[in-house]
Amino acid sequence: MAKGITKRADNYSQWYNDIVTKADLAENSAVRGSMVIKPYGYAIWEKIQSVLDKMFKDTGHSNAYFPLFIPKSFFSKEASHVDGFAKECAVVTHYRLKNDENGKGIVVDEDAKLEEELIVRPTSETIIWHSYKKWIQSYRDLPLLINQWANVVRWEMRTRLFLRTSEFLWQEGHTAHATKQEAIEETKQMMNIYADFAENWLAIPVRKGTKSDSERFAGALETYAIEALMQDGKALQAGTSHFLGQNFAKAFDVKFADKNGKLEYVWATSWGVSTRLMGALIMAHSDDNGLIIPPKLAPIQVVIVPIYKSDEQLQAISEKANLIKKHLQDKGISVKFDNRDEFKPGWKFAEYELKGVPIRIGIGPRDLENNTLEVARRDTLSKKVISQNNIEEYIEELLEKIQDNIYQKALSFRKENTHRVDTYEEFKEILEKKGGFIEAHWDGTKETEQKIKKETKATIRCIPIDSKEETGICMVTGKPSKKRVLFAKAY
Amino acid sequence: MAKGITKRADNYSQWYNDIVTKADLAENSAVRGSMVIKPYGYAIWEKIQSVLDKMFKDTGHSNAYFPLFIPKSFFSKEASHVDGFAKECAVVTHYRLKNDENGKGIVVDEDAKLEEELIVRPTSETIIWHSYKKWIQSYRDLPLLINQWANVVRWEMRTRLFLRTSEFLWQEGHTAHATKQEAIEETKQMMNIYADFAENWLAIPVRKGTKSDSERFAGALETYAIEALMQDGKALQAGTSHFLGQNFAKAFDVKFADKNGKLEYVWATSWGVSTRLMGALIMAHSDDNGLIIPPKLAPIQVVIVPIYKSDEQLQAISEKANLIKKHLQDKGISVKFDNRDEFKPGWKFAEYELKGVPIRIGIGPRDLENNTLEVARRDTLSKKVISQNNIEEYIEELLEKIQDNIYQKALSFRKENTHRVDTYEEFKEILEKKGGFIEAHWDGTKETEQKIKKETKATIRCIPIDSKEETGICMVTGKPSKKRVLFAKAY
Repeated sequence: MAKGITKRADNYSQWYNDIVTKADLAENSAVRGSMVIKPYGYAIWEKIQSVLDKMFKDTGHSNAYFPLFIPKSFFSKEASHVDGFAKECAVVTHYRLKNDENGKGIVVDEDAKLEEELIVRPTSETIIWHSYKKWIQSYRDLPLLINQWANVVRWEMRTRLFLRTSEFLWQEGHTAHATKQEAIEETKQMMNIYADFAENWLAIPVRKGTKSDSERFAGALETYAIEALMQDGKALQAGTSHFLGQNFAKAFDVKFADKNGKLEYVWATSWGVSTRLMGALIMAHSDDNGLIIPPKLAPIQVVIVPIYKSDEQLQAISEKANLIKKHLQDKGISVKFDNRDEFKPGWKFAEYELKGVPIRIGIGPRDLENNTLEVARRDTLSKKVISQNNIEEYIEELLEKIQDNIYQKALSFRKENTHRVDTYEEFKEILEKKGGFIEAHWDGTKETEQKIKKETKATIRCIPIDSKEETGICMVTGKPSKKRVLFAKAY
Repeated sequence: MAKGITKRADNYSQWYNDIVTKADLAENSAVRGSMVIKPYGYAIWEKIQSVLDKMFKDTGHSNAYFPLFIPKSFFSKEASHVDGFAKECAVVTHYRLKNDENGKGIVVDEDAKLEEELIVRPTSETIIWHSYKKWIQSYRDLPLLINQWANVVRWEMRTRLFLRTSEFLWQEGHTAHATKQEAIEETKQMMNIYADFAENWLAIPVRKGTKSDSERFAGALETYAIEALMQDGKALQAGTSHFLGQNFAKAFDVKFADKNGKLEYVWATSWGVSTRLMGALIMAHSDDNGLIIPPKLAPIQVVIVPIYKSDEQLQAISEKANLIKKHLQDKGISVKFDNRDEFKPGWKFAEYELKGVPIRIGIGPRDLENNTLEVARRDTLSKKVISQNNIEEYIEELLEKIQDNIYQKALSFRKENTHRVDTYEEFKEILEKKGGFIEAHWDGTKETEQKIKKETKATIRCIPIDSKEETGICMVTGKPSKKRVLFAKAY
């Protein structure tokens, strides 16, 4: 048991918590359900933010900021939205505290009660469409392509660091379009951007598809999602993109004049990913020794650890190490040279393994003599003594190899854990014994979906967009089905 | 009156509101006291964030994220902090809404009342020091240098876009140190970083100094501030850095073992700047035609406007314009080529003037013939026809010139509006007739400070660190004073 990390095979859930806390990513806070994202965890989130932000801007989106508080009445304006979102949420009722008259500390000042309660945003469609009404008059104002990075609150009874917390960080895109077709294209584009990011940065293969009626976002006509498979065989929804039709435009009365001066309701989308991606990243790749981070998102890509007995040795090694560090940094690689004297090399090795630094370079006195270095890979835990010549090219290539290897490993895992099933018996057996994704026929009804969920806890993760048309019958009811859908137990 | 902007001389306050709203920077929201930061305003804020974030990281700080909600009891832990911060704030009392039984929409579910109310953070010292207790055991854990970018809420009755809003965006640094001296150095370092940013990026000269006892941050032993002068002769506090002593360490029982194993309380600092800087930026430089943004923070540094009558002309101009755009972008300059056909050149000129784009390049058919361009400066409103040869170098230098000119203009304004005064009569007269900064002797007592504030509305902005020791007498009481302090009416 490395550094007190529970083994996956023993208790997967505890293993996850151990990684999150021992690798210094996050911890629970004094407020039930809220977490503290620690500097090392936040550094990964910042990388995620910066990559996604560029992807959004490259596709024409701008950032803005809308209020944290939403008047309660706003939620009643879109009928299905209110049921989905205005229930488990934080409610601000007062705006002042005062000293207790009996000297018992501070108490809520009952004279400072708000006329209308304010809801801490669980998502911002309502407050944003309230603004859009002012911003949109004519086709010239469209499309409106806006994103915001923000904190949101959804009161949760059972919370888990990154995966489900009452307060979490996310981005929410909210766009307005002149035509239905353009809004649908935007919805798909954002799903594809999320999939691209998941696969090429998080190194997590995802299945793209649409949600069934009952899993759809409250207020959407269609929800596109990307679904990833975790090492325990459970699915994790890693991002969603919603085609909202004209629902919010109608709720907030947002019309535009087209080129002929005719007034039409605006078409809308919204899409988001959150700090939940951190949970996916951790669970998809890490092992019993600790975190594994894909190089492209690692705050520290290479750590150099000196191995020495005397101050003279450390000095000679430091000269070489700083040179290597500089050359690597010139190639845009982030490097840490850990020359702290109060920790032994063995301790440092374990520490960086735990924290998932992709490459560790060890340098000792013999390496100086032999013009060599010891290079260790976090993903495979393999070590190799290599020449110091062309070390930059070697490391640069190795980082790419590691990124690819992590992705291929996750892809193989998903292949091995995706099953095609034709009978409900087999479905239940695989779900119980192996877990994973199950591709099966379904009759398209809410009743059958509910029955499966009730009996097996599995849900339809998505109706994959790459799923081929084929003649089949629903595994539960025997009614006809044209396509297999993707089932799994999910986070 | 350009584009409906009120003149400064007519109504300075309305002029400010006009600039903020008409240049599309921000607007009031449906929630009293909260603002919407629109994409163009947010783009400036993003530039501010990115520059400051790099400055913080270059000086060893890391970002993290702490909860939005703070348990009410935390505020009682630091005696002076509670009086300063736990009063006008948003209080969360419930965590669920439900459908009204009488069908009157949604109401607060009284069964979902929190045992302890949660306060939406007005500042995060308490929740952060609660975490620091867990993070700090030994001198090896110090210094702890952490910053967070976050939204905070301080209930305000009178709000103004950017300058004073109930919810605002900011960064708050919170550091922990082993020695008093190191904490004081950190406090000063951050004040200097803020001053550097204000002068070299915002192009606003600032006076650095410490706050008097009554203006100090609740819970601090010393508050350093940077003070800027606005065009109406009022001061604006643009950033503060607090030396907190051991107050929060004692309140949250945070001790560390020094090298000899002896337990000591930790020394602390906190420092922050907010979206208020946007208000300073707007008020310091803009004119009656609209916004003026220093080039280093302008989302669009150069706009190219084609002047044409026929499609053939537009096509020929576009070829040239796109080439110039590419060359400028290669130099890291942000350029927009506005080839929209639905707006006339004159409309575009006014639009970019209003939005403060530093340089406008006009290209017409004659420019193509003559190998020329018309270059207009936003800061001076001057125009010049120049050769297309070496346009990149010309524009690059011009952007620097404009940045410098804007700063020099603000500096001259401040010089002209800083007065040395020795009698209270003269003090009151200058304050009333001219405003501006006033350097005067003060006896150092809270009583005199309060009297001046009550009678003139002027406050001590800071005790400048560059103020020379000189023998003097307090302008009000005639008691001895060693140093002049800086007075002004303030935002």
